[in-house]
Amino acid sequence: MKESFVSLTLDSASTLRAGAFGNATHLSCRECGATRELGPHYACSECFGPLEVAYDFGQVTREQIEAGPRNIWRYKALLPVPDDIETSPNLEPGFTRLLDACNLAAELGLTKLWVKDDSTNPTNSFKDRVVACALSAARELGSRVFACPSTGNLANAVAAAGARAGIPTVVFIPSNLETPKQVNSAVFTESLVAVDGTYDDVNKLASEIAGEDPGWAFVNVNVRPFYAEGSKTLGYEIAEQLGWRLPDQIVIPVASGSQLTKVHKAFQELIALGLVEDKPYKVFGAQADGCSPVASAFKAGVDAIRPVKPDTIAKSLAIGNPADGIYVLDIARQTGGGVEQVSDDEIRAAIVLLARNEGIFTETAGGTTVAVLKKLVETGQLDPDAETVIINTGHGLKTLDAVSGSVGPRATIAPTYDAFTAAGIA
Amino acid sequence: MKESFVSLTLDSASTLRAGAFGNATHLSCRECGATRELGPHYACSECFGPLEVAYDFGQVTREQIEAGPRNIWRYKALLPVPDDIETSPNLEPGFTRLLDACNLAAELGLTKLWVKDDSTNPTNSFKDRVVACALSAARELGSRVFACPSTGNLANAVAAAGARAGIPTVVFIPSNLETPKQVNSAVFTESLVAVDGTYDDVNKLASEIAGEDPGWAFVNVNVRPFYAEGSKTLGYEIAEQLGWRLPDQIVIPVASGSQLTKVHKAFQELIALGLVEDKPYKVFGAQADGCSPVASAFKAGVDAIRPVKPDTIAKSLAIGNPADGIYVLDIARQTGGGVEQVSDDEIRAAIVLLARNEGIFTETAGGTTVAVLKKLVETGQLDPDAETVIINTGHGLKTLDAVSGSVGPRATIAPTYDAFTAAGIA
Repeated sequence: MKESFVSLTLDSASTLRAGAFGNATHLSCRECGATRELGPHYACSECFGPLEVAYDFGQVTREQIEAGPRNIWRYKALLPVPDDIETSPNLEPGFTRLLDACNLAAELGLTKLWVKDDSTNPTNSFKDRVVACALSAARELGSRVFACPSTGNLANAVAAAGARAGIPTVVFIPSNLETPKQVNSAVFTESLVAVDGTYDDVNKLASEIAGEDPGWAFVNVNVRPFYAEGSKTLGYEIAEQLGWRLPDQIVIPVASGSQLTKVHKAFQELIALGLVEDKPYKVFGAQADGCSPVASAFKAGVDAIRPVKPDTIAKSLAIGNPADGIYVLDIARQTGGGVEQVSDDEIRAAIVLLARNEGIFTETAGGTTVAVLKKLVETGQLDPDAETVIINTGHGLKTLDAVSGSVGPRATIAPTYDAFTAAGIA
Repeated sequence: MKESFVSLTLDSASTLRAGAFGNATHLSCRECGATRELGPHYACSECFGPLEVAYDFGQVTREQIEAGPRNIWRYKALLPVPDDIETSPNLEPGFTRLLDACNLAAELGLTKLWVKDDSTNPTNSFKDRVVACALSAARELGSRVFACPSTGNLANAVAAAGARAGIPTVVFIPSNLETPKQVNSAVFTESLVAVDGTYDDVNKLASEIAGEDPGWAFVNVNVRPFYAEGSKTLGYEIAEQLGWRLPDQIVIPVASGSQLTKVHKAFQELIALGLVEDKPYKVFGAQADGCSPVASAFKAGVDAIRPVKPDTIAKSLAIGNPADGIYVLDIARQTGGGVEQVSDDEIRAAIVLLARNEGIFTETAGGTTVAVLKKLVETGQLDPDAETVIINTGHGLKTLDAVSGSVGPRATIAPTYDAFTAAGIA
């Protein structure tokens, strides 16, 4: 089961097979534009800026995409993956539903609202998309171990993807993580490693291991440029599911900011390839009050992001020093969008609002997005008559505690018909 | 939002609109064959046998089905639902993935194994299918309230479906149900009602309310014949996803036994309609040692099911007196299949086995099915070279406790590279 994974020296490009990264041609520094060959590199050797995958797409048609499988691999020509990607066992994430949220729209006074529901991915979050791309890179680079530091969705996605692919995984978590969250990952991997320290300590250890041992592919460290490209598929799918059109407005949660920048990148690529009509659209970012460095910078009209110490129930958004924060600011400003923030109580209420209107149970990140949508409408930042999309990134079953104090039985009755009628229920 | 639901006297067939139940023509007693008009009836007025929906399908083609939406409504011509069913807001369940479980197959020594993965339904269990059909019946019958007694998957599905449809729901649970399970339903409905009593007490109260107030549609009581038909879609999808073929063998968990009988009914309908080739197939049922009345009767070679008091971690299978048990026995015997049972420890091990091979986290019912598959292979009851399908009915996030004692961190280390290397991980 594990024979496809042999230990190689990762930085030798000569060991790569032809077409290992599809139409991707090189890595490019987002800051200074310096280029580097495709490989397990994530920081520019000139300026230490973040590296991004660059492509030569050639021609890509709607027909070609529509003939593909109903998962992210239908967009393989636009991703850094080989043409035979479907033949390797993987979780086949993506092509999640785009729900016409007519009830929530009516509730908020919107004309047209869609929910892109990534809670229906294989491990119930958008992380399956990025991890699938990281997994492909790890395979092609000959990595021996597939790994990540994480406390939640990413850990689940890495452990499950590795299990299906037959690749050894190691998932690092802080040792004080609650048992249910440990179980979500431990069920998939025999190598869950608890680290006595904070999440920052765990992250630091991961970077150290990645630096010391070239056989380890840490999805969000040394194969991050490939990993991050997976988020583009959210943008491709939204456009295709709207009938090859872009929405007028989109609200996206902001943790590192990568997802928002990649959805924008996807829209721009679709325009450049002639797959959708060019048109203006506004991009909005959603943060929690307890971790709102990008929203704060947006409102202050400054370019620099001041790091914060997170304190919010939206743990999957709790990145105090977001790597792509400055790019989020750029995009929000360029497109006429914005970055807004909401309180933990607003997040809790929004989780229930979405559930009771659309039958979708979202996690705290999705609650943040719905709450920000509501606030954007109420403050007039979002046009209620323009077509709007919001992204639901994960499942409420993973953050049950967030709402366990907010919802519960309406009545407790004796098991008799008399007690039932006396309670006056419906 | 709720104007579509008006209170009507349900047993007046004259209030039904034309085509309210599609190609369904009447209800028919499974025991004595007596017929009754379509309506909120579930027991034969002659012999008290269970009523089942009967149809006049006319012609149904593969092309017609394939042109439909990618959810259970593609099979609307085969269900008791109106032709415009897609136009009413609903959760659009079904057309879940049929996964080529190549890793698990290799692990168990099987040539070809598929997992029909219903954990990816909107509320993460197969119950979304049956509830969607019950919801349609409730709409057409003019029900005022959509309700159920349940401790788990059914409660989630009813509460969420009602929320999306804009219909008031009432979900009855035993008051001692754990908080996380209460939250799963309470997030969707403002009317979760806790009953001081056992699940049997809750069930009894539900039947009493259904009997007293015709405005209440209890999915698994007075609209049960319509509800149960939803499970047929599992059978239709498996056949279509195999390329309009039936598998050689199928393993299905047995609670009431309804799902197994309906999958068999679906296969028979597909054969009768000429949509698949007629061929032999073996149907196997899966139960837990702590609630194995059907498996016990099968092994004893008797026709009567002796009720038991359930005691197993597979709570969603814990029905001690299964209504369709005798029909499960018939089908298992007629097809040359069987009914097998496994211990709680085998269930726990099987949950981990599936997760570590295929990246699917199943609940205890799915663990029971995988464990029974393993046992059937080991005892020679199942042909390892014949094409096999198993059904995964729900998501492990809902039964985390079942495995929290079985899996966990492999090591706990200090946050240093030295501690990491000393631990000898990968």
